[in-house]
Amino acid sequence: MTTAIAHLGPNGTYAEAAALIFLNWFQVQTGQEADLCPYPSIAQTLEAVAHGNAQLAVVPIENSIEGSVTMTMDALWRLDRLQIQQALVLPINHALITQSTHLDTIQVVYSHPQALAQCQQWLDKYVPKAQRIAANSTTEALQHLDEDATSAAIASQRAAELYNLSVLACPINDYPDNCTRFLLLSLAPSSGGTHTSLAFSLSANHPGMLLKPLQVFAERNINMSRIESRPSKRSLGDYLFFVDLEADVRQVATQGALRELLTCTETLKIFGSYDFLPQ
Amino acid sequence: MTTAIAHLGPNGTYAEAAALIFLNWFQVQTGQEADLCPYPSIAQTLEAVAHGNAQLAVVPIENSIEGSVTMTMDALWRLDRLQIQQALVLPINHALITQSTHLDTIQVVYSHPQALAQCQQWLDKYVPKAQRIAANSTTEALQHLDEDATSAAIASQRAAELYNLSVLACPINDYPDNCTRFLLLSLAPSSGGTHTSLAFSLSANHPGMLLKPLQVFAERNINMSRIESRPSKRSLGDYLFFVDLEADVRQVATQGALRELLTCTETLKIFGSYDFLPQ
Repeated sequence: MTTAIAHLGPNGTYAEAAALIFLNWFQVQTGQEADLCPYPSIAQTLEAVAHGNAQLAVVPIENSIEGSVTMTMDALWRLDRLQIQQALVLPINHALITQSTHLDTIQVVYSHPQALAQCQQWLDKYVPKAQRIAANSTTEALQHLDEDATSAAIASQRAAELYNLSVLACPINDYPDNCTRFLLLSLAPSSGGTHTSLAFSLSANHPGMLLKPLQVFAERNINMSRIESRPSKRSLGDYLFFVDLEADVRQVATQGALRELLTCTETLKIFGSYDFLPQ
Repeated sequence: MTTAIAHLGPNGTYAEAAALIFLNWFQVQTGQEADLCPYPSIAQTLEAVAHGNAQLAVVPIENSIEGSVTMTMDALWRLDRLQIQQALVLPINHALITQSTHLDTIQVVYSHPQALAQCQQWLDKYVPKAQRIAANSTTEALQHLDEDATSAAIASQRAAELYNLSVLACPINDYPDNCTRFLLLSLAPSSGGTHTSLAFSLSANHPGMLLKPLQVFAERNINMSRIESRPSKRSLGDYLFFVDLEADVRQVATQGALRELLTCTETLKIFGSYDFLPQ
């Protein structure tokens, strides 16, 4: 059977570029065939694997400028059983794609909200009067370019080539060191690696309880490389905490920490240990 | 001189509703006159106070469903000298405002991205085919309703009344317990209160250094009610940490913690201590 790798589509998104790298890694590792399957949203990409319609999913989790991809975090918590198999850091260079040949004729710029946010200073400076309209993906933004030569889209140079469109400016991201971390997930057990990701909620009746889970790692000299809170959606001030550890679930210290964590959290979800693919 | 209170405008936004409550509180406290001044973005609202064009600013910092308002956090860090004077939790009830009398004729829904996100399940269910377009504010979304009867906007019932527009459905937020925390800021020194907010960066060369700042609070039994990370925008994995404490800067223990925090952080910015206005 060919393995299906779900990702945010259509073709030409950064998620597809990441998925192609993971696909190559998967084929080298397993000797099996795999195909990419684009989905219209991050939630649907992850649900495809959770419901058995695909075997692997590729989703963005964090950008170096705009921060967490909250939709991925909320879906990971909700879907629950997905395990991270690998991670990857992809450099992001945004291009302004348009049929127009002059910046001053551009009245509308379409893109994914994260891409619009990552180029806001450039847009303020070069096309300050252009309306910014959110699209579901950077590639979907390209569909609006057929209409007239007063619109532009922000997507990758690779997307412009795929759809045979012109690039008027590149790179246009405000920070040159712009990159996104992607995850490869499946329902298979985690195989271990240098980083472990998990999330937990705390009992709403004990507001002081965040200290204890953090001490569990501190006492064992396990470094947290990231801690991020998300609303539990129960009430304001009630959070889920997403934590990345520089630790492997196969290590005794990590296993001890996770056992103790069970005693001082309300719900604990472990998303597995994994390595980063070299860039 | 009349005090100018800057807020995200135009009239009819939730920020204006919060600003009206703060204005009333300010007039009762000081006996002085104050006027509301709408600004087109959160960044410009805060810059108005930082640059002396207004004396007070009202901005959203956190929603119970969608989480942090990252634009406020990034601007607070960048502008640096603003101090929180008061906080307020405002219940949020979104209305679908349209000239249409039937849901199935609606092809486009305009709103602020946070409001669109807070109603996504309702939109998926009742207007699944409608395109969702981001506006700079919930009130700005109302401007698109003049064009035709196939468009709708998400804003407050109060905004519909202000602009004499019809509400087709309310509330349409996915979670009934939807509320937003707003801050009142100025350049005046903080007067103290039950909560303290601060943010810090860590030296990029010492990845294990997050543990120490958290222990500074733990050792003094100071409860962190919130910890949130934001990208430092220097490189992936390098963060700023925003912390809310249940503590007052006028307390000796808090002052000791802040002194010790200086020794284990790279840059420390204290946004002041403040109380919450009763709902």
